[in-house]
Amino acid sequence: MISDSAAQPTGFGPRSSPPLLVSFLAGDAGQWRIEKIASVKGQGLSLAPRLKVIEGPDTLGAHSLWNLRGVTSNTRYTYRRETDAMQARQEGLNRPQSTRAALIPIRKTEAWWALAQDERRSLLEEESHHISIGLDYLPAVARRLLHSRELGEQFDFLTWFEYAPENSDAFETLVRRLRETKEWDFVDREIDIRLMRA
Amino acid sequence: MISDSAAQPTGFGPRSSPPLLVSFLAGDAGQWRIEKIASVKGQGLSLAPRLKVIEGPDTLGAHSLWNLRGVTSNTRYTYRRETDAMQARQEGLNRPQSTRAALIPIRKTEAWWALAQDERRSLLEEESHHISIGLDYLPAVARRLLHSRELGEQFDFLTWFEYAPENSDAFETLVRRLRETKEWDFVDREIDIRLMRA
Repeated sequence: MISDSAAQPTGFGPRSSPPLLVSFLAGDAGQWRIEKIASVKGQGLSLAPRLKVIEGPDTLGAHSLWNLRGVTSNTRYTYRRETDAMQARQEGLNRPQSTRAALIPIRKTEAWWALAQDERRSLLEEESHHISIGLDYLPAVARRLLHSRELGEQFDFLTWFEYAPENSDAFETLVRRLRETKEWDFVDREIDIRLMRA
Repeated sequence: MISDSAAQPTGFGPRSSPPLLVSFLAGDAGQWRIEKIASVKGQGLSLAPRLKVIEGPDTLGAHSLWNLRGVTSNTRYTYRRETDAMQARQEGLNRPQSTRAALIPIRKTEAWWALAQDERRSLLEEESHHISIGLDYLPAVARRLLHSRELGEQFDFLTWFEYAPENSDAFETLVRRLRETKEWDFVDREIDIRLMRA
């Protein structure tokens, strides 16, 4: 049978983004020095000296101590007024002063995923104020949300944050406030990985 | 560096579903005979004699004329009252009388994906009645929605329908009603593949 190249799946080939595939490989090389890996809940991840962040090509099967993959996607809960507020205040990744970063992989419970869309939205924002808490730390803390659940990965999300050293305390407050919410009752695995630009 | 097997990404290994990876491979073999492939909008797909449906293992790179992959996932728009109404009425795939099937891959415009969650929900249901139209054809038409966008595939969704021959007219009405909606203004590629159990 002749292969129909025009109709072949593209995998993560050229396509206007999102989705952009982003991989985090722990090992001996990478732009980020790993300062700490703490298990907040559930099974941890092994410590390595460096973290390599790769955008674009699929790294499944690449040589590394561990490899976490996720894709950017459309918003799932954010309403227009919230999107507008975020876009008015947020700044991008890779700011020169953002020499600190955190990678926080998160998995939610099956109970969370079995909820209907209105129930998840209500828990996330009306009860837990997840979006508005995040707004309080813009533009100091720049962030990127990656979805991993659809890739069959071990986490549901990979959350990535970048900030300047003088905003370290603000970042700790952001993380603490989120962990105190009702939404976090539905988190069953969470790892906190802290990084410094190498 | 020693590989940390416990922390390796699972790909689509054992995990409580969803996500379940489902692949549709066109070629000379498979449970379904392909009756027709029509391009409703945008680039088509080549005709083949058979369609093989594979649940579970990843088929990326498998030998086939074309190969479309998607994953089951949580609901993205459905509210609790709608979920309950669906669950009360729907029946599963693989009913013996369901000898007809349709695979309709769909891609939506970048404008759709740039909308906020409340705007997409409003277009999908309050303006287009997508969920309630689907309810009108339960349990006659059984269905499965697969998400492909996050896998870097050429379509955003793979929609799969199964029904008995006597419900063929009802299915045509369902498809026509959906294509007349405001939501469908945001569809920029759609293929209609009709199948008969081999």
